Amino acid sequence: MDNPVTEAPAVPVSRRDGEADTPWLDAREQRFWRAHLEVGKLLDHQLSRELQAHNLAINDYEILVVLSESPDRRMRMTDLATATLQSKSRLSHQITRMETAGLVLRQECPGDRRGLYAHLTEHGWETLRKVAPDHVRSVREHFIDRLTDEQLDALYAALAPIAEHLRGLRGRG
Amino acid sequence: MDNPVTEAPAVPVSRRDGEADTPWLDAREQRFWRAHLEVGKLLDHQLSRELQAHNLAINDYEILVVLSESPDRRMRMTDLATATLQSKSRLSHQITRMETAGLVLRQECPGDRRGLYAHLTEHGWETLRKVAPDHVRSVREHFIDRLTDEQLDALYAALAPIAEHLRGLRGRG
Repeated sequence: MDNPVTEAPAVPVSRRDGEADTPWLDAREQRFWRAHLEVGKLLDHQLSRELQAHNLAINDYEILVVLSESPDRRMRMTDLATATLQSKSRLSHQITRMETAGLVLRQECPGDRRGLYAHLTEHGWETLRKVAPDHVRSVREHFIDRLTDEQLDALYAALAPIAEHLRGLRGRG
Repeated sequence: MDNPVTEAPAVPVSRRDGEADTPWLDAREQRFWRAHLEVGKLLDHQLSRELQAHNLAINDYEILVVLSESPDRRMRMTDLATATLQSKSRLSHQITRMETAGLVLRQECPGDRRGLYAHLTEHGWETLRKVAPDHVRSVREHFIDRLTDEQLDALYAALAPIAEHLRGLRGRG
């Protein structure tokens, strides 16, 4: 599974390496960190697999959602790359695939020199409406419904400040 | 940000669509689900950025760790694909890149017809040892040290059964 070394490497390390100062995770931190990574990765994998029944990658689904929530269901490509944390070149490849599938359309905006927009097409919108009920059932079955209300609130209270911290870092590019 | 529609789409949906039966997430579930996705994605992004200082992608780091923890620091390519949840073709591309960087070596095992192994090289091992202290500091700074001991235990208690559920599904491929 996903095993970033955050405990000391298996082979003894001498003090000369300066690694004696490393704040390795203890066993309790380590088991949590690995569970966090594992759930993230396996859940992504499972949701992806279930979206494949609709011929959608999980990244496609994300793009459909972001565009559906934008004014006029469109977004400047550079903003879409920022919103989805992708490089412009990777996003460009993805949008090309999605354009071929008729889900989005790339267009210049008359009078706006700041580049291309991605638009959600009617087919893209209908696809999202059709797929969303299955997707929410998957999210419930594999994740949300496995948590009590108390766990849900405790998790949110733990994660929200971390999300804020990370958003702040990201702004500093 | 990462916004999978798990609440009803913004535009009113008539009963004829059968979506009235969809168990949309309520506001409390929704805010947690989005925070979970956001932290996963932003943390991955931040850790990736810090690993870039060592010329490593986050997936490269994962491969180094998995190999370092395997007997003889090697693993059959098919098992490595399973362990890292990657397709064989995607893993193959990654290992080719890492081979060029001298971090791993692909070799057939004499007497074993079941294919190629990826080996961790001495340079790969030294790289992992050099990078791990910085990586653990990043994981602490951006995540672990932002949680209290109580939160850590509560989160682990919530995530561990979900990880087990997802591992089980995965086996059923």
